[in-house]
Amino acid sequence: MRVLGIDPGTARLGYAVLETVPSLKLITCGIIKTSKDQSASLRLAEIRKDLLQIINLYKPELVSVEKLFFFKNLKTIVPVAEARGVILEVAGTLSLELQEFTPLQVKQIITGQGRAEKSLVADIICSELGLSAGISPDDASDAVAIALCSIRNRKNCDSKASLKC
Amino acid sequence: MRVLGIDPGTARLGYAVLETVPSLKLITCGIIKTSKDQSASLRLAEIRKDLLQIINLYKPELVSVEKLFFFKNLKTIVPVAEARGVILEVAGTLSLELQEFTPLQVKQIITGQGRAEKSLVADIICSELGLSAGISPDDASDAVAIALCSIRNRKNCDSKASLKC
Repeated sequence: MRVLGIDPGTARLGYAVLETVPSLKLITCGIIKTSKDQSASLRLAEIRKDLLQIINLYKPELVSVEKLFFFKNLKTIVPVAEARGVILEVAGTLSLELQEFTPLQVKQIITGQGRAEKSLVADIICSELGLSAGISPDDASDAVAIALCSIRNRKNCDSKASLKC
Repeated sequence: MRVLGIDPGTARLGYAVLETVPSLKLITCGIIKTSKDQSASLRLAEIRKDLLQIINLYKPELVSVEKLFFFKNLKTIVPVAEARGVILEVAGTLSLELQEFTPLQVKQIITGQGRAEKSLVADIICSELGLSAGISPDDASDAVAIALCSIRNRKNCDSKASLKC
């Protein structure tokens, strides 16, 4: 299975493609960075265009995206939700399965602790993927963690298949 | 000039197309209603598909959309911002001019009072468009008001052209 993990944002959107067969492997990761000199409208158009290119190139079967669950002010929540709108729409239009995880769920699934430090999450995903160096920037590393959540979730479901997970 | 006004939302999105030449006229208005039984992903895909059909049919040169400026909780702000993300992306992808107005600005521009009742806004737009009956549902009426804001704004700019509006 190929999973596209996405850490949403209008200024910087992290993405990562993981493969599970024959073994867990990081295929690619990076960020879509848009210019602050452009309008939100053009930035979101750029994000959709780039996302379609990534999906066309790596052909994931599942999109895993960070869910909003907490915010301090409109300035941060609105551009993230607007970018999420475009990501969700693309998944819907292309009939790709979609899973969502809050930042708390990501920490819980990866480390076993909802309040874990981000550095612990980064260390665990590097170890699990057999990478000698950490993934940068942070947005790409976060996208890897989100993709890994879907894979772990799926594994748990598969192993509990008789329980109708 | 043809203006497409949009009152954003994932469950119900109001739209209206106004024309200014040879005289101000309401061409069409209505709502895009998506099923609550569908995922946000499929609802947003439906919104984008329907929006493209409306734009293809009525060929507006300008998109006027309500801007978020106040919210009570994540449950209302997130789906509206996600729908706005799709609307903004479509305008960017199709290189359509985009204008945004907060609900306060809409009331101010239409009635001259930022704290006006919604019914006063509805009465004024009916009178201005020469309609004998009110526009329903509310989302469609709101979209007409938002489109009218762009037209009034443009008129003010044209008449102040020498002042470099």
